[in-house]
Amino acid sequence: MNTHNGHLPGVEPGGLADLVAEIFTAVGLNPSDAEAVAHHLVEADLRGVDSHGVSRTAVYVHRIRRGLVTARPQRSVITQTPVSALLDAGNGPGIVAAEHAMRTAIAKAADTGVGMVSVRNSNHCGMLAHYTGMAAREGLVALATTSAPAAMAPWGAKDSYFGTNPISYAVPAPEGRPDIVFDMATSHVAKGKIILAGKNGQRIPLDWALDENGRPTGDPAAALAGSMLPVGGPKGSGLALLVEVFSALLSGAHYGPHIPPLYDNDDHPQGLGHFFLAMSPEVFLPADEFTARVGRLADEVAALPAAEGHERVYLPGEPEAERAEHRRAHGIPLSAEVRAELRAVAREAGVGAALTAVLDGSEPAAGAGEAAAAEGSPR
Amino acid sequence: MNTHNGHLPGVEPGGLADLVAEIFTAVGLNPSDAEAVAHHLVEADLRGVDSHGVSRTAVYVHRIRRGLVTARPQRSVITQTPVSALLDAGNGPGIVAAEHAMRTAIAKAADTGVGMVSVRNSNHCGMLAHYTGMAAREGLVALATTSAPAAMAPWGAKDSYFGTNPISYAVPAPEGRPDIVFDMATSHVAKGKIILAGKNGQRIPLDWALDENGRPTGDPAAALAGSMLPVGGPKGSGLALLVEVFSALLSGAHYGPHIPPLYDNDDHPQGLGHFFLAMSPEVFLPADEFTARVGRLADEVAALPAAEGHERVYLPGEPEAERAEHRRAHGIPLSAEVRAELRAVAREAGVGAALTAVLDGSEPAAGAGEAAAAEGSPR
Repeated sequence: MNTHNGHLPGVEPGGLADLVAEIFTAVGLNPSDAEAVAHHLVEADLRGVDSHGVSRTAVYVHRIRRGLVTARPQRSVITQTPVSALLDAGNGPGIVAAEHAMRTAIAKAADTGVGMVSVRNSNHCGMLAHYTGMAAREGLVALATTSAPAAMAPWGAKDSYFGTNPISYAVPAPEGRPDIVFDMATSHVAKGKIILAGKNGQRIPLDWALDENGRPTGDPAAALAGSMLPVGGPKGSGLALLVEVFSALLSGAHYGPHIPPLYDNDDHPQGLGHFFLAMSPEVFLPADEFTARVGRLADEVAALPAAEGHERVYLPGEPEAERAEHRRAHGIPLSAEVRAELRAVAREAGVGAALTAVLDGSEPAAGAGEAAAAEGSPR
Repeated sequence: MNTHNGHLPGVEPGGLADLVAEIFTAVGLNPSDAEAVAHHLVEADLRGVDSHGVSRTAVYVHRIRRGLVTARPQRSVITQTPVSALLDAGNGPGIVAAEHAMRTAIAKAADTGVGMVSVRNSNHCGMLAHYTGMAAREGLVALATTSAPAAMAPWGAKDSYFGTNPISYAVPAPEGRPDIVFDMATSHVAKGKIILAGKNGQRIPLDWALDENGRPTGDPAAALAGSMLPVGGPKGSGLALLVEVFSALLSGAHYGPHIPPLYDNDDHPQGLGHFFLAMSPEVFLPADEFTARVGRLADEVAALPAAEGHERVYLPGEPEAERAEHRRAHGIPLSAEVRAELRAVAREAGVGAALTAVLDGSEPAAGAGEAAAAEGSPR
């Protein structure tokens, strides 16, 4: 892979993945697992889900070095049937565990029409869209959920209990169309939007968060000290509960406020749970008839006239696919902070300057294509 | 059953169900199907989901009499596997088809751990919570979705394409706790709330609906001439698309704007699709361990201190269960309009005055328990 940054205004994705893989190998992951984690993080950055990109490298590495995440875990199957499996991730890297779980679901769906796989004793697994996207590429409809540390108040409550519990699904599209890939947090907005409003000195709408006294707040600082609010009030709250049931209650993982945090926690493994479902449309309709129907619906939706303030109608996953194309060509616009953090992590792990050179060069402004694509993003 | 209204301030549910069952028998349903439809509609009224209650009797009857819904349909299994079935509802009553489909999913889940049933050529199937609740009573986790005529603009679009595409799930709780039963439309609010705001001369928030030119509107009349907006923008829009995939694309049913309307349509069957999934938690954990975990989470959420403006924290299905208890004791507060409509339908169907007597008496004010419970309702 080309590790030379060259003339790209952003960071070259191949070289970035090589750097991150080398860091994870240096802290003990076997090389193929390290590569899987690195590619996942870079894929998230390519798709514009920067919150789940290489900016997570430092905390992942920190937890591995502290022994809170097992670099080379002993994974096991606790119980399984032809349509299901309950897996113990052995407290290993969540991305590796989740990929393995979705591959298990895909294999079961190929055999029986459906695979449901629940995982316990796992860790932060990045961007769910990656896993549902894997299944869609195999022609399967897929769902994925994961639990997360408490950050969101159930509807009507003063305090956090649920995580921002995300849900992803993917649907295979016919040749020539990107698959439909959807990924949402069940909170009204991502926490990052509140942090950004605070940095910009802006107030936030009152349905985004509660302050620490359980009152809706327009003040980003008060919101960050309080709780996120679920999207659509009781609707997002109910969906977050469903995520908790699938990811944690069914798997035997920790749930809600019993999940230790990812950051500022040097003592406890997180014990996270995930859930993956893959189903074959062929148990209902011939595969090409189904994908042709998906294509017709997608064409019709994309052709709808746009509402005021919108340029065009995007299908789930389209803005991310466009952004990935743009960033693949122009590089990933990593902030100076994230570059500095990666350099420090690499140095500490003993990774040489040849690989960190990919981070050199000026911090680019986001390209024009980025701003247009960002609007349709669900997260 | 007691068909005498007596001293109840509202309409006595047993007598109301008898009346509605007799109406459906009179227009051609076999008596057990008529009873299933009647009990479904009264259950919706008991739970406070009045939009899916006996107020639907008139349009259901109208469509049966016009031959647009087949009173005694020929249902068939198009294809099935041990984990799935695709059913043709024979253009029969949607409630009967959906109950049959969920029973099929439950039987498959009992055999294999999971049942996925998709239905085409069906009609309006009422309140999805009824079907997921059936599965929860059997100890299963369940999902249900249904397509619906276009009424909601996809995120970024000017015009309607999706229905208000609802999603329901249910989770079995331990003995002594009501099951968790969730049911939401993917629109920001139910259309009924916009109609009500119009009647009360109030304006609506700008994120509820678009006018016919694709502009957010605070005017209920302009909203009703335009499109509903999805809850949480791209989030509700993506969930509505998932509902369309499960209910219509997988089943071969009509989808989006190709679904003929329920009202003011005297020519076309609707060709609706539904989807039901039932899964056994026992493929992951022993049943009592799973329900004990559900109970602990439910206890913890219910015990959270309430946010400002809330009396306490409700779990999904709790407000509806409380309302049902209240209405079972005090009767169902049917409006004068719905009573008059039911009397007219009964007269036209040749149903005698002994049964319509249940509708007599004054229109009651909603009880105190109603108002408290209404707040937590997701719809």
